[in-house]
Amino acid sequence: MQPSDHRPASQIAGSAVFPHRHLTGIDGLQPHEIMFLLDEAEHWVEANRNRTKSDKRLEGLTQINAFFENSTRTLLSFEIAGKRLGADVVNMHAAQSSVKKGETLIDTAMTLNAMRADVIVIRHMSSGAVRLIAGKVDCPVLNAGDGQHEHPTQALLDALTIRRRRGHIAGQTVVICGDILHSRVARSNILALTALAARVRVCAPSTLMPVDIEKMGVTAFTDFDAALDGADVVMMLRLQNERMAGGFIPSNNEFHLRYGLTPARLARAPGALVMHPGPMNRGVEIDSAVADHPEQSAITEQVEMGVAVRMACLDVLTRRARGVEGWA
Amino acid sequence: MQPSDHRPASQIAGSAVFPHRHLTGIDGLQPHEIMFLLDEAEHWVEANRNRTKSDKRLEGLTQINAFFENSTRTLLSFEIAGKRLGADVVNMHAAQSSVKKGETLIDTAMTLNAMRADVIVIRHMSSGAVRLIAGKVDCPVLNAGDGQHEHPTQALLDALTIRRRRGHIAGQTVVICGDILHSRVARSNILALTALAARVRVCAPSTLMPVDIEKMGVTAFTDFDAALDGADVVMMLRLQNERMAGGFIPSNNEFHLRYGLTPARLARAPGALVMHPGPMNRGVEIDSAVADHPEQSAITEQVEMGVAVRMACLDVLTRRARGVEGWA
Amino acid sequence: MQPSDHRPASQIAGSAVFPHRHLTGIDGLQPHEIMFLLDEAEHWVEANRNRTKSDKRLEGLTQINAFFENSTRTLLSFEIAGKRLGADVVNMHAAQSSVKKGETLIDTAMTLNAMRADVIVIRHMSSGAVRLIAGKVDCPVLNAGDGQHEHPTQALLDALTIRRRRGHIAGQTVVICGDILHSRVARSNILALTALAARVRVCAPSTLMPVDIEKMGVTAFTDFDAALDGADVVMMLRLQNERMAGGFIPSNNEFHLRYGLTPARLARAPGALVMHPGPMNRGVEIDSAVADHPEQSAITEQVEMGVAVRMACLDVLTRRARGVEGWA
Repeated sequence: MQPSDHRPASQIAGSAVFPHRHLTGIDGLQPHEIMFLLDEAEHWVEANRNRTKSDKRLEGLTQINAFFENSTRTLLSFEIAGKRLGADVVNMHAAQSSVKKGETLIDTAMTLNAMRADVIVIRHMSSGAVRLIAGKVDCPVLNAGDGQHEHPTQALLDALTIRRRRGHIAGQTVVICGDILHSRVARSNILALTALAARVRVCAPSTLMPVDIEKMGVTAFTDFDAALDGADVVMMLRLQNERMAGGFIPSNNEFHLRYGLTPARLARAPGALVMHPGPMNRGVEIDSAVADHPEQSAITEQVEMGVAVRMACLDVLTRRARGVEGWA
Repeated sequence: MQPSDHRPASQIAGSAVFPHRHLTGIDGLQPHEIMFLLDEAEHWVEANRNRTKSDKRLEGLTQINAFFENSTRTLLSFEIAGKRLGADVVNMHAAQSSVKKGETLIDTAMTLNAMRADVIVIRHMSSGAVRLIAGKVDCPVLNAGDGQHEHPTQALLDALTIRRRRGHIAGQTVVICGDILHSRVARSNILALTALAARVRVCAPSTLMPVDIEKMGVTAFTDFDAALDGADVVMMLRLQNERMAGGFIPSNNEFHLRYGLTPARLARAPGALVMHPGPMNRGVEIDSAVADHPEQSAITEQVEMGVAVRMACLDVLTRRARGVEGWA
Repeated sequence: MQPSDHRPASQIAGSAVFPHRHLTGIDGLQPHEIMFLLDEAEHWVEANRNRTKSDKRLEGLTQINAFFENSTRTLLSFEIAGKRLGADVVNMHAAQSSVKKGETLIDTAMTLNAMRADVIVIRHMSSGAVRLIAGKVDCPVLNAGDGQHEHPTQALLDALTIRRRRGHIAGQTVVICGDILHSRVARSNILALTALAARVRVCAPSTLMPVDIEKMGVTAFTDFDAALDGADVVMMLRLQNERMAGGFIPSNNEFHLRYGLTPARLARAPGALVMHPGPMNRGVEIDSAVADHPEQSAITEQVEMGVAVRMACLDVLTRRARGVEGWA
C-alpha cells in the first residue's frame, strides 16, 4: 500500500482533512482526501450490514435529489443513503419539472436554495451544470453525474471496491474498457485511480478513444487482448445504445467480438477482479459467465459500496453546517 | 365461525405460526396462516383509526417498492403502510428504471439486494416474476400483483373485510364476477376463500372463464342472475378496457347488460355485501346506486383494510430479521 | 399598519382564530384569519433559517399530496413543509394514477380518505375540484391550485413577502400584471390583498382582463406604464405559452413590448418591490435585470416564504385532530 493509503483521518484535525464545500468531481481532490472518503465509507459498509440501531445524524436536514436525467440506480442509492442517515429526502424529477416550462438552470438552483436545502444532489445531462449550480447555492452540492464530465461517487465506490478486494489500490493494473470518449464514469475513475497510484490502461475502438488521453497518465490500447495481459482489475463500461446509432461502432455483435469480456478473454488476466457500473448489457460488453463469476465478479459489491460511499459523502459535506466539532 | 377462524395466534409459538420467508401468493399458505395475518391486521385497523401514538417498529429498515407496472392505489397503500411503521420507504418506478435500458429482472433484483433492502414489494406484469426475484434476494419479498398469477394482499384485505362485515368467512357464499380468466385478484381470492371454507361461485362470460376452473373448488356460472341467488357476498372485478379490444367481450354496454351489478340484480341477493377492488368503471361492471349503497357496499372499507393488511404483512415478514422474540 | 395587522393571535382563544376545516381558497377568510396564518408562518421562517433542532409536531400523521396537474415547485414546497414537520408524506402523481383508468374524482377522494389520510393537499386542473373533494373526506384539505379558481398558499406567501419587505400590507399600492383572466394566482392575490386593505391595480391586455374585474375592489389598467405610477409592489404573472396559441396575445415579443417589466418601466415605480410566482420566462414578462435586482427583487424570498406558509397551514389545519389545546 502506498503512503496515501495509510494516512489515518484521526491524525488530521477537523475539516483540514476535507476542505471542500462541494463534491463536483474527483478533479481537484488530493489523494489523502479521496482516501479519507473511502475510510469514512468503510464505517457505513459495516453499519449497513449490521443494522442493529440507526444513526440518524442528518435528522432535520433536507436533501434534494435534483435529477434532470433519469437514473434509477443512482437515485435509489442516494435516496437510501440519505434516508438511512435520517435526512428528509425529496426527489425532484426533471420529467415533470419547471425545466420543461423554460425555467433556466440557475433559477431552478435558486429555488432549491430558497427552500433551504441542506444538501443538493444533482444529475444533469450537461457537463459543468453541477459546478454552475454549486456556485449559486448556500449548501453543499454533490455531483451524481453531469454530461460527459464526472461521476465522482461512482469512482469512489469503484475505488473502495478495489481496495477491499485487492487490499490496496496503488500499484494495481486496472483496465477500463468501452466507450472512453463519452464516459464520465471512465473520466472520474481515471482521475481517482491515477491519483491513488494505480496503473490505468484504457481500451476502446479508436472512434471511442479521446485524443491525448495519455496526458491523463494512462496507457491507451485498441487491442483488448493486449490490454488484459497482467491486469489485476477489469472495469467494463456500459455500451450506450445511442452510440451505435451515432455510427461510433458498427454493431453490438462486432463490439462484443472485439471488446466484450468473455471467459476466454478473462483467462488472459487470471484472477482479475471484474467490475461494471451497471446496468449491464449481457452478451454485449460482458458475458454472463464473467458477470456472475463467483470469485472474480465484484459487480453487486459495487452496488453495496455505492450506498456506503454516498452516506459518507452526505455526512462529510454536511458536517460544517451541522457544527460537528473540528468542522464548523 | 369455523375452527380455522378461532385458532388464536398466541397459542402457537414463534414463527411456527407463519414460517414463510416471502409472501408471493396465497397458494401454499395454510388456513391458520391466513387467519394469523388477518388477526395481525385487526391490530393495525385499530391503530390507524386511533392514531394517538405512532408505532415505528420498522424504524431503520429499508422498504423498496419496485413497481414494474403502474398502480397508484396499491403503491400508495404499501407506501403509507411502510411509513406508518417507520420504515425508510423508497419507490422504484419502472417507467424510469434500468429495465428500460435492457437490464434483466434478476440484475435489478441483485441490485436492490446489494443496497441492503430489508423488504422488497414487487409489482410486475409477468406471472412468476415475483417468485423469481424472491429466490435471488436475502430479504423478504412481498407480491403486490404479478401478471395473471396472484395478488395476495388483495385477497387478504378482501377476506378481512368479509370477516369483519359478516362475522366469519367459512360457510359464506361469495360470488366473484367478471374477467376470471385474466384476473390475479380472482385467483388469489379463490385460493384464500376456499382455504377458509367459503363457498365460492365464479361468474363470467365463457370467453373469460378458465377451463377446469371447478378444479379450484368453485362453482362456475355464466348466468349472473343464477349465480346471485342466495349469495352473501358479491365481489365484482374491474373490467380492463384492453379486454374489449382483445375481442373477449362485444362491448361495455353488452357486458353491463349481462354482468353489470345493478340494483335489480343485487335484489336477488338481499343484504349481500358488495365489493370491488377498484378503480371502478361505474356504469360498466357496477352501477353507482350499488357501489354507493350505504349498508351493503364495503368498497371503501376494502381500501382501509388494505393499509392494515399491508402493515401486518410488512411487520410479520420482517420479524425474523428484527430479532423479534420467537421469530429469530 | 392597519388594525387587522396588529391583532395578536394569543388574544383569541383556541380555534376561534381559525375556525375553518379546510383551506380551499382565500375567499371566505376574514382579514384576521389571513393575518393569523401569516403570523404563524413567521415562526417557521425563523425555524427554517436556524435549523438547530427539529420540531416534528406532525409525526405519525399521513399527508397525501394528490397532484392531478404537474407542478414541481409547489409539490416540492409542500413535500418539504410536511417532512420538516415530521409527517409521513406520500405523493400521488396523476400521470400514473387511477384517474387514467377512468376513476371518478370522488372515488379517488374516497380512496385517499379510506387510507386514513390526516391532511390532503390537492392540485387539480378543474376549478372547484378541491372544494368537491373537501366535502367528501374526513380530514383537512389544502388547495395547491385548482383550475382558474384559487391558489391560496401562493397568495399567503406573497402577502407574507410584502409584509416583511414593506413592513405592512394595508395601504400598499400593488400592481398585478399579466394574464388576469386565467390566473388563479391573480385571483387569490386580489382576494387576499384587498381583504388586507392594500390598493390593488390589475393590468392586462383587454383580451386577458375579466369583465367586471373592478367589482373585486381593484382598479383595471390596460396601460402598464400608467399602472406603475406610484406602485409599491409589482407582481408579474407567468405568461402561459398556451395563451399565445389560443390567440389571446399576438406574440411573446409583442407582449414583452407592452407588458414586460423592463428596467425602464420599473423606473416609473422607484424602489418598488418586484415579485413573480415562478417559473419565470425571462425576456418575456420580466427582464433579467429586474428579476435579479439586488434590492428590489423579492422573487427568491417568495420561494422561501412558500415553505414557511405551507408549514403554517399544515400545522394549523391539523391542530383539531392532534388535540392541540384550545383547538380540539
